Amino acid sequence: MNTPLQAQFAQRLQNLRQQMANARQDAALIFSLDNLRYLYNYSGEAAYGLVTQTNLYLITDYRFLEQAEDECVSDRIPTKVICRDRDKQSLGQAIAVILQSEKVEHVWFEAEHISVGVWDTIAKDNPQAIFTPSTGALEHQRKSKDAWEVAQIKAAAHIADQALAALLPQIQIGASEAELALELDYQMQKRGSQGLSFVTILGFGARSALPHCIPSQKRLQIGDLIVLDFGAVVNGYRSDMTRSFVAGPASSQQQAMFDTVNAAQQAAFALLRDGVAAQEVNAASAAVLQASKFAEFAGPGLGHGLGIKLHEQPFISPVCRENLLRNYVVTIEPGIYIPQYGGVRVEDDVLITENSFEFLTHAPKHFELSL
Amino acid sequence: MNTPLQAQFAQRLQNLRQQMANARQDAALIFSLDNLRYLYNYSGEAAYGLVTQTNLYLITDYRFLEQAEDECVSDRIPTKVICRDRDKQSLGQAIAVILQSEKVEHVWFEAEHISVGVWDTIAKDNPQAIFTPSTGALEHQRKSKDAWEVAQIKAAAHIADQALAALLPQIQIGASEAELALELDYQMQKRGSQGLSFVTILGFGARSALPHCIPSQKRLQIGDLIVLDFGAVVNGYRSDMTRSFVAGPASSQQQAMFDTVNAAQQAAFALLRDGVAAQEVNAASAAVLQASKFAEFAGPGLGHGLGIKLHEQPFISPVCRENLLRNYVVTIEPGIYIPQYGGVRVEDDVLITENSFEFLTHAPKHFELSL
Repeated sequence: MNTPLQAQFAQRLQNLRQQMANARQDAALIFSLDNLRYLYNYSGEAAYGLVTQTNLYLITDYRFLEQAEDECVSDRIPTKVICRDRDKQSLGQAIAVILQSEKVEHVWFEAEHISVGVWDTIAKDNPQAIFTPSTGALEHQRKSKDAWEVAQIKAAAHIADQALAALLPQIQIGASEAELALELDYQMQKRGSQGLSFVTILGFGARSALPHCIPSQKRLQIGDLIVLDFGAVVNGYRSDMTRSFVAGPASSQQQAMFDTVNAAQQAAFALLRDGVAAQEVNAASAAVLQASKFAEFAGPGLGHGLGIKLHEQPFISPVCRENLLRNYVVTIEPGIYIPQYGGVRVEDDVLITENSFEFLTHAPKHFELSL
Repeated sequence: MNTPLQAQFAQRLQNLRQQMANARQDAALIFSLDNLRYLYNYSGEAAYGLVTQTNLYLITDYRFLEQAEDECVSDRIPTKVICRDRDKQSLGQAIAVILQSEKVEHVWFEAEHISVGVWDTIAKDNPQAIFTPSTGALEHQRKSKDAWEVAQIKAAAHIADQALAALLPQIQIGASEAELALELDYQMQKRGSQGLSFVTILGFGARSALPHCIPSQKRLQIGDLIVLDFGAVVNGYRSDMTRSFVAGPASSQQQAMFDTVNAAQQAAFALLRDGVAAQEVNAASAAVLQASKFAEFAGPGLGHGLGIKLHEQPFISPVCRENLLRNYVVTIEPGIYIPQYGGVRVEDDVLITENSFEFLTHAPKHFELSL
């Protein structure tokens, strides 16, 4: 780990330890791989974290030992990497060894990130510990992005912008959803995306109304609506962008859908700033959709936090009780989905700032493709 | 769903209902997406299954409603698809509505596939139900593949074979791990792989000793060991194959590693047949590695079941208590991993038959690349 990064990771760890102290917890078990990346810089699999006020442990096995030692261990945040022989020691036993050597009693655990089956065995192997769910402790921290995290999401969004620009000339009548999605995925990875942010969504015609359309062999026809939702990954951080097009001149209905969705997005943008209620932003956007002739086809929910995970807190919806704060990165993605006809969605990634917001995605929003 | 497939799915459902009856369970909650694919033919996300002796339910939300109705519902296996408004009804409440209308009491649930956090809310919303973990019920069924399943894995393995053949001429001095992995991934998807079976593992030189090496910018040098572990996906079924190479003429040490690994694989192959103990197969292969000068660098475990999931039952290891039965599909993948030096692994997918086995992977195993 390089030195500037060590400072960021030390801060994250300090914040967690403060939360633990406030909750009178001596240790915290970390089961989410996303949280292990956030807290340990670990990007492998099959690992479990244990944090005390003075030590930091990572339990893994031979398959990920070298990677763990390479990624986690640093001068500033010395991580004790434990290599467990899975044939001889259960996860609960490995945890028990640490808890007993640390003489800790009150232990947080990530109840959202461990199965009932595995947890039952861990609890059985640790009858002396008093376990309490740490629900959302790290997810809460992760909502606010530091400068390095924003830079990674920005870099991912830039790759996605560039890949879309490279794809556009290939969107031609007769091309299939699957062909174009594969080409887009290839262009993102050529530009440095580490895999994909998620399985690219690409639908033509009536299939564009499926909010999670998996690319098929369907071929593009003149007049089809096209919805394209995709993202890149840089150092584990994701981008997420949707653009909608029409193959050729838009019908008045299609143009009205596009204009309505854009107006709904603008209504949300106009309110973004440090401290705004997520519900208020959602309501402003929803009001535009509800006032249109497409009211019954509006998608619920407006957006979500974005970072190590594609969908993370906060979730901008009618039931969200949170405010958006500066340094949050969220998507704003209103959509209209008319079954058996087609859909339009536009989605950007934005960084909330003190008085407004900053775009992280920059691809142009032109609707009609000249084919 | 087409008609021949409906018969296979009807059989799977009947087998589960038989297991439920044997365990005196009135209903079963299915939380694993892999099991939903196996049982319902559903390939989306955010869905939960509920099976009774007479009905089949799938709870999802607006994002996956069309997909669920398209994939699941058939004449032979009528599925009731429930579209839940997540802002207004918890998952536990949606489950309660069904359990109460079905008047069932004893309910199996997949404790391995639901988090402690979500399960606590489901249990709270269903105080009248008596829940019991169904641990491994469907995973047990899934070990034995029907003819259609074998055909899908075979098709995926064929795609991987062909993609590797297309990649080989591009493995040249100076190419990076990431470039070659991207090219291989592209070649598989061009040939119809639906995404990737898993993130392709590709390591040069010392990095080939990492059992799960993520492709980096490292460039190939003459004399480097190369380990390449990858797979394709067809109709949700995965292949998984490893080939090892050396860039140019092999040193005597490298050749000895390769020969030892191949001999270890052959020792396992020689025992494969309906009913053989997995432990016995593992021991035969391990004996070859232990008798070599690489004994201390042998990887533990020999292979795993393969199907909808990359790693599924049975796990062929020293602690496995199972027999391999006809119609199981497993990997056989001995390896030698010398830290800071390099690794060699060879892996094939095989179908266990009455008296022997059948290869599903066919890529040649030549070691030295002429560069």
